[in-house]
Amino acid sequence: MPNTPDPLLIAGREFHSRLLLGTGKFSSNEAMASALEASGCEIVTVALRRADLTGKGDPFANILDFIDPKKYLLLPNTSGALNAEEAVRLARLAAAAGLPKWVKLEIHPDPRYLLPDPIETLKAAEQLVREGFTVLPYINADPVLAKRLQDVGTATVMPLGSPIGSNRGIETRAQIEIIIEQATVPVVVDAGLGAPSQAAEALEMGADAVLVNTAIAIAPDPSRMGRAFKMAVEAGREAFLLGLGSELDTASPTSPLTAFLSQ
Amino acid sequence: MPNTPDPLLIAGREFHSRLLLGTGKFSSNEAMASALEASGCEIVTVALRRADLTGKGDPFANILDFIDPKKYLLLPNTSGALNAEEAVRLARLAAAAGLPKWVKLEIHPDPRYLLPDPIETLKAAEQLVREGFTVLPYINADPVLAKRLQDVGTATVMPLGSPIGSNRGIETRAQIEIIIEQATVPVVVDAGLGAPSQAAEALEMGADAVLVNTAIAIAPDPSRMGRAFKMAVEAGREAFLLGLGSELDTASPTSPLTAFLSQ
Amino acid sequence: MPNTPDPLLIAGREFHSRLLLGTGKFSSNEAMASALEASGCEIVTVALRRADLTGKGDPFANILDFIDPKKYLLLPNTSGALNAEEAVRLARLAAAAGLPKWVKLEIHPDPRYLLPDPIETLKAAEQLVREGFTVLPYINADPVLAKRLQDVGTATVMPLGSPIGSNRGIETRAQIEIIIEQATVPVVVDAGLGAPSQAAEALEMGADAVLVNTAIAIAPDPSRMGRAFKMAVEAGREAFLLGLGSELDTASPTSPLTAFLSQ
Amino acid sequence: MPNTPDPLLIAGREFHSRLLLGTGKFSSNEAMASALEASGCEIVTVALRRADLTGKGDPFANILDFIDPKKYLLLPNTSGALNAEEAVRLARLAAAAGLPKWVKLEIHPDPRYLLPDPIETLKAAEQLVREGFTVLPYINADPVLAKRLQDVGTATVMPLGSPIGSNRGIETRAQIEIIIEQATVPVVVDAGLGAPSQAAEALEMGADAVLVNTAIAIAPDPSRMGRAFKMAVEAGREAFLLGLGSELDTASPTSPLTAFLSQ
Repeated sequence: MPNTPDPLLIAGREFHSRLLLGTGKFSSNEAMASALEASGCEIVTVALRRADLTGKGDPFANILDFIDPKKYLLLPNTSGALNAEEAVRLARLAAAAGLPKWVKLEIHPDPRYLLPDPIETLKAAEQLVREGFTVLPYINADPVLAKRLQDVGTATVMPLGSPIGSNRGIETRAQIEIIIEQATVPVVVDAGLGAPSQAAEALEMGADAVLVNTAIAIAPDPSRMGRAFKMAVEAGREAFLLGLGSELDTASPTSPLTAFLSQ
Repeated sequence: MPNTPDPLLIAGREFHSRLLLGTGKFSSNEAMASALEASGCEIVTVALRRADLTGKGDPFANILDFIDPKKYLLLPNTSGALNAEEAVRLARLAAAAGLPKWVKLEIHPDPRYLLPDPIETLKAAEQLVREGFTVLPYINADPVLAKRLQDVGTATVMPLGSPIGSNRGIETRAQIEIIIEQATVPVVVDAGLGAPSQAAEALEMGADAVLVNTAIAIAPDPSRMGRAFKMAVEAGREAFLLGLGSELDTASPTSPLTAFLSQ
Repeated sequence: MPNTPDPLLIAGREFHSRLLLGTGKFSSNEAMASALEASGCEIVTVALRRADLTGKGDPFANILDFIDPKKYLLLPNTSGALNAEEAVRLARLAAAAGLPKWVKLEIHPDPRYLLPDPIETLKAAEQLVREGFTVLPYINADPVLAKRLQDVGTATVMPLGSPIGSNRGIETRAQIEIIIEQATVPVVVDAGLGAPSQAAEALEMGADAVLVNTAIAIAPDPSRMGRAFKMAVEAGREAFLLGLGSELDTASPTSPLTAFLSQ
Repeated sequence: MPNTPDPLLIAGREFHSRLLLGTGKFSSNEAMASALEASGCEIVTVALRRADLTGKGDPFANILDFIDPKKYLLLPNTSGALNAEEAVRLARLAAAAGLPKWVKLEIHPDPRYLLPDPIETLKAAEQLVREGFTVLPYINADPVLAKRLQDVGTATVMPLGSPIGSNRGIETRAQIEIIIEQATVPVVVDAGLGAPSQAAEALEMGADAVLVNTAIAIAPDPSRMGRAFKMAVEAGREAFLLGLGSELDTASPTSPLTAFLSQ
């Protein structure tokens, strides 16, 4: 049964959930697995370092054991890359290790706000597209950059709502509206969504999907929070498809106001 | 099966849905009935005029035939009343006609913005409480007024998010937060909620419930929109119960950023 | 020389400044006097308790020595009154002591947010107007209450932007816009204005004046901050009089974009 | 006499006004000249096309006759350039024609929102800095891009508040705050400032200056509006220098609330 009534198409592949999940910050792999399940998500992003391609040492090394590749598309991300070269290298390592040739491209030289670098991101995207990767770039909410990325062949654009893990929601609303208006590929709002209402809002604006991590991972019950985001995303998509009323300056009565006692 | 995990208690009565519906503006009674069903609501408000206590003439006169009183609590409202006297008279008429002795108290002398009158509302509330009514007053988001109303014994307070039918959401957020903090009765955000995300936000803030009418009634498919609001309300309540992260000034990484290529 | 190009009329009296000042929280009476001077204000509100009608004990007892009644209209306020009766009593005491028969009516039973009581405020206003006072009531941004107050004869309405001393600016923008649209007396935005930009915004919206206290009183140099607010208020009023452009969805080029290199 | 108490330093040159003006959209050159005067500005940006280096045909061809180069720094801009190459060519033409070797770098391939291209802007900036230009780039509110630009030697960064001519103010507040925090060169908020309050807000946030064009140029009296912006900018700068109070969750009384009638 589809989560949302209309499928999401990314690079020709069909998804029925419009909620993507990140895998950082969960208290355990078991908690993560159960949140993935409850959220109904079909795309799961994993930091390459954490996925631990070598399989040595990291307590999370076996994270991939908890994500069934038949059920979820595993989306390696390049989190931690400081420039295009590092990001490209990471993506290649993931592919060499047998992960899908999809990559969530993240290049953020700035450790404090983790904001993405537009120049290096475009450069890496060009290279990875050339090498046959399906590229989903994380970007600032910059409409011109979004356009350039889709022009070089990325499969989505993923503008941030607010800084990663900040829970501040869609601070970049006006810019994201322009990105959506001009997009020829799916727009996935990534980063900063700290509440189900914020995820619903993104979908209502016309974003094709959202990626959530922190808000679910650090919830006291990630599974229940995952389900809450699932419902909010579905609600937001439905509202977008049906069309929402525009904002009015005055009230609009729901009841007839005249002669109400005249009977 | 409960819509939300914890029941809502109003005047000692237990409800499992935190979404109240209004019945104005639907294109037909059939559309209304199916939206009520899909929304999972248990409390339905009806304008007394429309309910047509005399049963004559009004095309909506038979609206009550479409609302099963075993399934829904029928909540008469005094929409159209210009002062306390009119509101009290309407409430009595409804009770005399056999409707439940509950009343959504609405007194809005102003036809343009339909904003409630604080003075007349308090006066009518005092009178109706004395007469044994369960009173749910629609008010401006005024914390002091909300306190006075609960002190005279109203069963809820229903502050507006923005003007009725305006779709502008929760413009009075700061005031509603204070109302919630100080409330000893359920707080129901009423009016202005035009999108599922806005309903979810109200619940996330700690409102006990929301009342929605226009956004559902005028949707091209009220039943689907009713279901979308249902999901959003459930998502918002879940998030509130679980607790949401606070807003951060900086980013908070979801992936380990150090030494990611050191393996 | 007028501060603003058009005079402000309150109860038939003409003022050239649209910035009213409060006198609480200054580090000294001297600092206060110099801030009043720099701000260009002509109306100064003083808490009756602080003004100390008895002249005994209070270190601020002599505050009135620092406010030249020839230069400033001294506006006693009823801050601290918990109900109409206390407020009326305070206003009478002030008049009996020879202060102007003007009163800034403040009734806030709630010590945490200092929000005004709509019921008691209307009651006291009716009484004081009957007794010949010029009444300037501090209220929640409630358009219906504002209308009722002007209907009983208050000289202004003074809706709050946000709680007293909170520095949060105009959180009640939508409601204040309605108050301004419906007002037949000057609208003075009172409380919560923590920055010159917020004062300017109030004037740009069409408010007739603003009252500022905390932001100036606790500034490291109240005199310079007073002058900053003076400039902001004048700027905002000018912009309102000239008319501001409406918000546009798209850009509007300032330079011709075509054929720029065709020469 | 300085407009603002502390000078603004750009590329070693000292300015006393923190308000930069654009010259598009004025109804006449005379109106423009008088607005420049009233605004107290010292930096004036001129579209190269409009300045008409050839002197032929354009009714605004003689705009330079109306801007005294002894009084104002003439800042040529590359408005209309679609890529780095065009922008560099325009800057060189201006310098060749004897204009100052300063350039406001604007590259906006998108005619609808006039949003700047981050990639081409960085490329052109690198080239122009190498050629000895003082470069002031107009950019999206992208903190990483801002950092890269200052690292290649631009004299300022000029993030947009909202799209050019949109009057929507500072929609990118959170991003601009990060830019300011990380800046080693002056931050000039450019575009979208439609009201004096919005200009004041930019300065209060810590922006070093603002550039305004449309709001002044299309005002019914550009000279008076120029003066209004001047006052607002000065007020905002003063408030920033003095330090503004932080936002509080609760009220903070300005008057002693206890025992007020105990005397």
